[in-house]
Amino acid sequence: MSKVSINNEEIDIVIGAVQADLTSFLEDWRPFISKFHLIIVQDPDLKGEPKIPDGFKVDVYTKSKIDQTVGASAAALFSGYSCRYFGYLMSRKKYVISIDDDCTPAKDTKGNLVDAIAQHINNLKTPATPFFFNTLYDPFCKGADFVRGYPFSMREGVPCGLSCGLWLNLADYDAPTQALKPGLKNTRYVDAVLTVPVKTFMPVSGINIAFNRELLGPVLFSSFKLEKEGKYRYETMEDIWTGMSVKLISDHLGIGVKTGLPYVSRKERGNAIESLKKEGQGVNLMEQVLPFFQSLSLSKEATTAEDCVKELAAAVKERLGQTDAGFAKTSETMLEWLKIWSANK
Amino acid sequence: MSKVSINNEEIDIVIGAVQADLTSFLEDWRPFISKFHLIIVQDPDLKGEPKIPDGFKVDVYTKSKIDQTVGASAAALFSGYSCRYFGYLMSRKKYVISIDDDCTPAKDTKGNLVDAIAQHINNLKTPATPFFFNTLYDPFCKGADFVRGYPFSMREGVPCGLSCGLWLNLADYDAPTQALKPGLKNTRYVDAVLTVPVKTFMPVSGINIAFNRELLGPVLFSSFKLEKEGKYRYETMEDIWTGMSVKLISDHLGIGVKTGLPYVSRKERGNAIESLKKEGQGVNLMEQVLPFFQSLSLSKEATTAEDCVKELAAAVKERLGQTDAGFAKTSETMLEWLKIWSANK
Repeated sequence: MSKVSINNEEIDIVIGAVQADLTSFLEDWRPFISKFHLIIVQDPDLKGEPKIPDGFKVDVYTKSKIDQTVGASAAALFSGYSCRYFGYLMSRKKYVISIDDDCTPAKDTKGNLVDAIAQHINNLKTPATPFFFNTLYDPFCKGADFVRGYPFSMREGVPCGLSCGLWLNLADYDAPTQALKPGLKNTRYVDAVLTVPVKTFMPVSGINIAFNRELLGPVLFSSFKLEKEGKYRYETMEDIWTGMSVKLISDHLGIGVKTGLPYVSRKERGNAIESLKKEGQGVNLMEQVLPFFQSLSLSKEATTAEDCVKELAAAVKERLGQTDAGFAKTSETMLEWLKIWSANK
Repeated sequence: MSKVSINNEEIDIVIGAVQADLTSFLEDWRPFISKFHLIIVQDPDLKGEPKIPDGFKVDVYTKSKIDQTVGASAAALFSGYSCRYFGYLMSRKKYVISIDDDCTPAKDTKGNLVDAIAQHINNLKTPATPFFFNTLYDPFCKGADFVRGYPFSMREGVPCGLSCGLWLNLADYDAPTQALKPGLKNTRYVDAVLTVPVKTFMPVSGINIAFNRELLGPVLFSSFKLEKEGKYRYETMEDIWTGMSVKLISDHLGIGVKTGLPYVSRKERGNAIESLKKEGQGVNLMEQVLPFFQSLSLSKEATTAEDCVKELAAAVKERLGQTDAGFAKTSETMLEWLKIWSANK
């Protein structure tokens, strides 16, 4: 099966800027992103005006605009990596692609630079197949198809809501793994996209993702933050939590989630050993979070993404709220986000 | 994480021979298989002595030995591709690797021949991770690990029972797909192994597989045959059914199933258009088979692979037996196989 057409007007590229000078980041990506509309949201904790080279179609949001839109108290929700969620809120497009500002375009096995934007759009615009695993991976990739034994009634697939890309060079390991194996880099280019099966959870990373805003917009928000959540990916759990929520809700609504291509290349940033103490809390909490999501069923009454977030928030409060104050806060934040979303959509 | 050691004495390579002259097949594989014990089982419908070059440690089984071991009436169970299951029965080793005789060693992206045996053993000897999806694929492959967010309590994994390899050149498409797209070849080398998540089914192909006989021996048998099942892969459903059974039972027993590497290269054989009429029955039956497996739960009392096959056979009879005479026969065959297994193990 073959590549889809890309309508530039359907796409926003959202960059959460945790560094002020985006010159080299944007220059690296220029060949792939200059024809699209960019939304750049600067981490509100960051001082200084963002530095952006000429030649991009870009809207830039800084602390003052965030404060003005959601109020100064809610603005705290958008600090650190979470600033990009403000970009998701500001987008009016069907598809949002978001790449962290420590990433550069990766090279494939032939040494060609990867067009991550085109690959994400291809993933989102072709169906997903969550109900039966195709051993030859995404049957909608060029040159692929369904293998023998795949029921014909299931070959139409379902809409894809989320496309999770991967990372070469610095893989997205946690602080303990990276601290134990400082030399461990990801050099394996796996030339595949696959649908994550229904009822299967995985740790979604926010480093390199794309989603269908019309289907999942209200779900993509950072409602779970560690007390000591920092400015390095090692130190965050927000995207992991968001990913679990997205997967739960996608499964419930019959929407697919894909993972695999495209790769980006990540540069070293932060100190894994320093980050160890910050991440301890997250490591422990994941042990509770996964069984919670794996055992949760949403009701038939939840037919929209908003309904699902509401139900999930209630379940978080009821079933996790007693165990850790962070979860009670998470439940509140989910509901607050829904209000912000409704007021701004 | 790194490669495991291979003990040649733990491994049998089983070849179901549906052609009499195995010279070129075995010469192609010699560099990788000559140090292992081979079990070659000739399709009992095939005339003529098998032709096998010198220099292999091999036991050959033909119709007379099959008749003598299981009786002339049961011998019919081992016709066509199913002859290799007789080899599984004769094996006394922990690991069995089985590759169809129309396959040659594949080349990886660097042009090196793939050692499919070493890769299968690596897949089987390292743990599987069916309860949470690792986005960087098998964390026990060299150079890989668990990604951020993967619960530490789950990193030990579970034993791997089945390793499903893939195919370059002629992909394992069904007859309709291959007939519609005669030029469609698989050229995409996906450098990954992954655990198929718990409760996820996929169409297992018997072309290139390996399994832990101690864990799953009683399950690996062809109990589902189409009325017009032929001599080409297009025309078979036996391995698809067996794979569904293996996955159901593995999930129940806490055993993992991996798919991906190693690749083999498949040569053209058979005529897809001619095969269309034979496969129609299988295509229809899969529509019933998948929901059956997806909705079936085995009981807590089923604690061994034998127990599980017994329960599955009963469920097949009760829930599918009325819809198609083939399913009633399948249930009987499963129980017959258990008897043969007990008598010969």
